[in-house]
Order: sequence, then C-alpha cells, then structure tokens
Amino acid sequence: MGAARFLRGLIRTVEPSAITVIVNTADDDRFFGLAVSPDLDTITYTLAGLAGPRGWGLRHDTFTCLSALERFYDAGWFHLGDRDLATHLYRTDQLARGATLSIVTSEISRSFGVTARILPMSDDPVRTVLHTNEGVLSFQRYLVGRRARPQVRRVSYRGAARARPGPGVLAAIAAADAVIVAPSNPFLSIGPILAVPGIRRALAAHPGPVAAISPLVARRAVSGPLTRLLRRFGLPVSSLGIAARYRPFLDTLVIDRRDRADVPALAAVGVRAVVSDTILTSPARAERLARDLLRSLGLG
Amino acid sequence: MGAARFLRGLIRTVEPSAITVIVNTADDDRFFGLAVSPDLDTITYTLAGLAGPRGWGLRHDTFTCLSALERFYDAGWFHLGDRDLATHLYRTDQLARGATLSIVTSEISRSFGVTARILPMSDDPVRTVLHTNEGVLSFQRYLVGRRARPQVRRVSYRGAARARPGPGVLAAIAAADAVIVAPSNPFLSIGPILAVPGIRRALAAHPGPVAAISPLVARRAVSGPLTRLLRRFGLPVSSLGIAARYRPFLDTLVIDRRDRADVPALAAVGVRAVVSDTILTSPARAERLARDLLRSLGLG
Repeated sequence: MGAARFLRGLIRTVEPSAITVIVNTADDDRFFGLAVSPDLDTITYTLAGLAGPRGWGLRHDTFTCLSALERFYDAGWFHLGDRDLATHLYRTDQLARGATLSIVTSEISRSFGVTARILPMSDDPVRTVLHTNEGVLSFQRYLVGRRARPQVRRVSYRGAARARPGPGVLAAIAAADAVIVAPSNPFLSIGPILAVPGIRRALAAHPGPVAAISPLVARRAVSGPLTRLLRRFGLPVSSLGIAARYRPFLDTLVIDRRDRADVPALAAVGVRAVVSDTILTSPARAERLARDLLRSLGLG
Repeated sequence: MGAARFLRGLIRTVEPSAITVIVNTADDDRFFGLAVSPDLDTITYTLAGLAGPRGWGLRHDTFTCLSALERFYDAGWFHLGDRDLATHLYRTDQLARGATLSIVTSEISRSFGVTARILPMSDDPVRTVLHTNEGVLSFQRYLVGRRARPQVRRVSYRGAARARPGPGVLAAIAAADAVIVAPSNPFLSIGPILAVPGIRRALAAHPGPVAAISPLVARRAVSGPLTRLLRRFGLPVSSLGIAARYRPFLDTLVIDRRDRADVPALAAVGVRAVVSDTILTSPARAERLARDLLRSLGLG
C-alpha cells in the first residue's frame, strides 16, 4: 500500500502529531461478521511501527483462529491474524454499540500509541465495487480473492453520492500547510475519497499546495492492477494519466527519475513535476522522497 | 461441568447418535460483542473429544487474540482461545444473519463430527442472574469474574417465563427411553432448563424413568458454590436437598457411596437411590457410573 510506504518516511521528517491522514474506507467489508477496515488498519499499524511485512496485518502475527474458521467458512484466502483480529473485534463491537467509525478509529489508533490523526474519509458506508467479466466483485474479493485477474469494465463507489465527509476531514484539508495524495491507485484507493461529495471541492479550494506522488515507475505500476485500469479508462499509462485523474486540484506531481521525460508534458497541462526516487522499499527511501517533496513545496 | 464429565462416560456405553443432550443456554453472554454459549460449546467439544482439560474451551488452544484484546478491554478474566474464538465468530455471524441458536448449534456440532444431538433448551434469550451483596451479576461474572465469592440472595432466570422450549426439546423428552439429569448445579445449570415453560411438565409426564445424578459427594459439592446455595435456599446439603429440587418428576437419584446413608430418607420421599461412584475424574469412571445407572433403569 503506497500510502503506508510513504508515511513510513514522512514521519521521519515531520512530527507525526502534525500529520492528518484521510483514509479510504470504501474497501471496508464484513468477513466472518467482523467489520474489517483494511486501509485504516494498515495506516494505524504502519504509524505504530507494527505493520506486517507484506503491507497488511500486524507483524509477527499468528493465524490460529483463521485455521479454525476454515471449519466453518470457505474464506481462508482472507488473511486475518490472531492479534489483528482483536482490532476487528473491538471495531465490530463498538460499531454495534452505536459508535461512529471515526471515534472507533481514533480509539484504536490511540491504543496503538499513534499520535498522527487518522480520519476515515466518511462515517457513512461507501463500497468500491468492480464490475468485471466475472460479475460484480467487492474490492477485497477482486484484489485478494481473485488476485485482480478479472477484467474490469467499470468501477463504482456505492453509497458515495450520499456519504458525508468524516468529522474533521474538510477542516483538516482547509487547515493543512500542504495536501499530499499518496502514491496509491487513483481508481481503487484515492478515487473513493474523491467521490465523497465536498472533498474534491475542498482540495480545489485549498490555498496551499496540493501534491500527489505518482504510483507509476518507468510507466509501470509497482504493484496491482493500475496499468490495466488506466488503459481500460482510456488514459495514458504515464504520469500524464495520473495527473489527468487529479485535475483540476493538482499543483505538483512527484514522479520517478525513470519518468523524467514526462516533465514537459506535465508542465503543459499546468502540473509542476518534482523528480525523485519513488520506489519506497525502505523507510529511508521514503524519507528521502518526503524531504524532496516538502523542500519543493517550500516546507522543508 | 458435571454434564460434560458424565457424557464422556455415557458415550462409551451408549451409541452417541442415540443421545440427545438438552443444554442450558442461560449462561450465554456477549463478550467482546461475540455470542458465547459456554455450555453448548463445552458439550460440543466434549462429545468431539476436543474439550480443554479445565472443562472449558478447546484442548491445546492458544490465547494470542485474547492478549491483543487487552489493549482494548479490561476483560482478560474471560478465557477465550484462538481456536474457540472461531466457534463464537461463526455463531455470532450466523445469529446476526437470522439463524436460530438451534440451527447454528447443529451446524457447529456437525462440523466437529459430533453425532449426538445437542439441543439448546430454548432459542429465546434466557439469562441466569444472581442477586448478590455486590449487586446483580451475570452467571459468568459471578462464577468466573468473581470466582463465586459474592453472597447470593436470589437467583433468577430472566426471560424464562416468555421462553419457548427449543425445537425438538419436548419431543426428545417424550420419546426418550430414559431422561438423565446431569450431575450439575440444580440452581445454576439445571434450574434454567426447568424454568422454561413446558419442560417440567414434559418431565413429569414422561412415561419412562427420569433419573438424576447428585452433584454432591459426601454431602459436599465437587466444585462450585452449590453447598452455599442449598443452605441459602433452606435445603439440606445432602441427596435430600437435590431430590427436593427435582420433585415431582424424579424417579431415581444416583448418589455416591459416601452418601449411602441417605437411601432410606430418599425412599421415604418416593425417590429410588442408585448407589455408585460419582466422582467422574476419568471417562472410565463416568462409563462405570453410566453402566450402573442404565442397568438399574433396565436399559443396560
């Protein structure tokens, strides 16, 4: 998950308590009756320094309960660690008692010692749904269950039109020195956030810089189905395709050195390019990217 | 749990598929939002040969999720193993989808390869509540959380008056060659079953023998707060006190050799005594007791 990889570096150069992370909740789903919020948890665990090595779950987790669940369910493809399970149990319990996702999220992140503010994009249910040649699939079933193999015809964000931005979301955007769109999939990870009424407008109205980090390196997706999705939606598989998704609010796009040929074309559409190393395989690399970006925004 | 200890022996002498176990559900509770049915699970795990050594949970279970839950809850006193958790998750999920407790119970027991029929006493919620000098406590909080230390003033079975017997319960009693009341606490384990309207009458109307196994040995409770409860309710701490709770449907009471002095007094109130060894510390001992009892009922 690009956002998590980037945040590992950002918190090395910016005081975490000065950071607000607005998180996609449209991949939230119920598994075994549990309210699972994959992106919120990945961000929380990452900021707590406890994220699992593969980008999901908690480090050093065990899978005893999941094995036992296979007695009842045919859903072993969904990885759910015993420690991670406690987070889902708490969230499910609190939501059932009437707490909002925002409140539960802040309780969970506090319990993990996270000082950055983690805000769900909305407390209202939004679901990314992929219309594919194998039928309508939830994001998790498409990505994890079917390994992004089905051919996507359309992406929709169910519930988005009626969703309100989560408490604090619009205010955090308005008050931010800079907004940074993480190097995530513009359709599946950032798209749902932008589909919540009011958020695009808040970004466009933001007085400071709004930057994004391209998830492409050498015109290829680091992971996931991004390349195919860009093609499917008739966009160039390049920084230009990413910039197109984020117009008109985008001022600055960080692109990888291997994509520096895109700089003039970006300038032509009014987007300033910052060239850096965007393969974030270590916190040190992510820190270097964060420093490059903040410096270019006059905040370094 | 006396019922589980006895069943370990009964299934060694009676074909399990010929056994129906009617189980107390008044200790069911919600923990961490999960629907926990301690007695149903103990019976299921016992009949599957997978019960934990201390009478609850699954053998060889781990407690990783429970440790992680302590981040969120102050309820570590409630032991919840990672494998056991899968059963609670499945039950909670299915109940939320509208399944009845009877149906979920039969699915769970089937998934554990249990061929005996396990019937919840009722699909309607009943809760054993103890009115104590420390206030009103649920059974689990009283027994596990407070280790049965508070002084009990009254026991009530909330919801029992409106509860209907679970599907098959009355029919199973009517069709049984014999009914055996397990060596459990008459107030806390058997009492709730008898409080469900129709069950007492079905036992009284039963054409075959209705036997009970006394949970007392040498006029003392093998475990738990039974002695204090008998005193509290003005009953003799002896086989006579147990028989008094099960009149008028009781024909036969199995008592321990150390209580054989009670035989004439039991006969005087119309209860036939079967003297055996009722300390069920091993399946072999329980099997001997089951054989003694069945023989005395003309079924051995």
